[in-house]
Amino acid sequence: MSTTIKTLQLADARRIIAAATKKAEEIKQPMCIAVADAGGNLLAFERMENAWMGSIDISQKKAWTSRAFDIETGQLAAHSQSGGQFFGIHASNDGKVMIFAGGIPIKQDDKVIGSIGVSGGSGEQDHSVAEAGAAAF
Amino acid sequence: MSTTIKTLQLADARRIIAAATKKAEEIKQPMCIAVADAGGNLLAFERMENAWMGSIDISQKKAWTSRAFDIETGQLAAHSQSGGQFFGIHASNDGKVMIFAGGIPIKQDDKVIGSIGVSGGSGEQDHSVAEAGAAAF
Amino acid sequence: MSTTIKTLQLADARRIIAAATKKAEEIKQPMCIAVADAGGNLLAFERMENAWMGSIDISQKKAWTSRAFDIETGQLAAHSQSGGQFFGIHASNDGKVMIFAGGIPIKQDDKVIGSIGVSGGSGEQDHSVAEAGAAAF
Amino acid sequence: MSTTIKTLQLADARRIIAAATKKAEEIKQPMCIAVADAGGNLLAFERMENAWMGSIDISQKKAWTSRAFDIETGQLAAHSQSGGQFFGIHASNDGKVMIFAGGIPIKQDDKVIGSIGVSGGSGEQDHSVAEAGAAAF
Repeated sequence: MSTTIKTLQLADARRIIAAATKKAEEIKQPMCIAVADAGGNLLAFERMENAWMGSIDISQKKAWTSRAFDIETGQLAAHSQSGGQFFGIHASNDGKVMIFAGGIPIKQDDKVIGSIGVSGGSGEQDHSVAEAGAAAF
Repeated sequence: MSTTIKTLQLADARRIIAAATKKAEEIKQPMCIAVADAGGNLLAFERMENAWMGSIDISQKKAWTSRAFDIETGQLAAHSQSGGQFFGIHASNDGKVMIFAGGIPIKQDDKVIGSIGVSGGSGEQDHSVAEAGAAAF
Repeated sequence: MSTTIKTLQLADARRIIAAATKKAEEIKQPMCIAVADAGGNLLAFERMENAWMGSIDISQKKAWTSRAFDIETGQLAAHSQSGGQFFGIHASNDGKVMIFAGGIPIKQDDKVIGSIGVSGGSGEQDHSVAEAGAAAF
Repeated sequence: MSTTIKTLQLADARRIIAAATKKAEEIKQPMCIAVADAGGNLLAFERMENAWMGSIDISQKKAWTSRAFDIETGQLAAHSQSGGQFFGIHASNDGKVMIFAGGIPIKQDDKVIGSIGVSGGSGEQDHSVAEAGAAAF
């Protein structure tokens, strides 16, 4: 009685990272880029030349977060500020929940099958690079 | 001169989870549901099909929090925002304190004997499912 | 180019826990029993009456470990003692790796699709209860 | 009077991972492969199809460890068993020190400029794949 789910695999992750990298180069902002599978587990990661080393962790956690809650981290941010319905969620899951833009779930047939997380610039830049990566799938 | 306390046990937890699940199905929002005993320790947990994986941790911590402070987590939220008297409490207890709705203490004879924690939807949805579970006791 | 994987679901987890509980009752040793899916994420958990509260965490981590390395935790133990090729693995993954008996991967068509973790007695008891649970799939 | 250091960069990491992957395919054992720079910070990571999810963390920490102590993790193992001069080192650095084979420092002009960490098989397999990766530099 097991069930079947779809998930990203390594070949997808490479293509997604390549597309995200291209976008990051266009906007001239070096990024850390991570791709996770349907189980929230990391498939691939790259840090571009001169990307912030603090973004290594953040990009991976953005990827995890957007799969863990099937939501863009930028949208989660809207609910997670002081006064919002999810304020405090950043303290859950041993600090793995990133509540600012840059993480995007990747869907197929309306099911989340993985995610991308980007960190290295402004929230807007991170999100646009993540979108470019997600669009490559 | 030890004392006696009342506590939920596994059979209660199963009934509480079943009632919460029924409510979650009615509102069509899959949930993670956790029940803790009077000692704050987990008795039982279920993740419904398609519930967020990030809610596994949160539901258990909501159950813990509502027993640890004998309060609904939605009520704790009111005091825990920036500017509130308990702001910062989410960083205590190794990050186990959840300060948003979905956790409810379960009482008997006006004493807290356990708790339920629910995560998987909006704060309002989580709370309503937790209430349905608590009412089953 | 995504791929498809099989995974345990909640209905499976309930059946597995019921079978494990039956075995635990037979050997008169209360247990904590956890079942994880193919992504290593918890599906369901129950703590039997009088089971050790320290086993709540251990049973969940045994389930995670046996999926994370596709191995029985009792077999992992053989390689993880001082002098063994994996000695030190217990310090990885933020302390989630349990290197003693009680965790078993659950397979279908020779693929791991989830796992069970049991804690509450001797290594031999934990393993036998986990086996009874796994056999119910 | 600052100084200059040499370090691996992303292009190197890709070449190293490609070579390691080729070796892993030859020995038919899927691996997680991580490459760090001279600062011990992750440059790139790939998880091959069916590699253990528990190896995601371990491969990255093997890379960190072999740069952090400028030593192969398999050699560190020799001193880190119970009774050895470094026994207990696995508990330092927040659990980032991996004391079993699979991590190798990468040198240029006799200076460590980065490292590779591999996890997914036996210690011998992990080490041979790491060696193949390191040789590609």
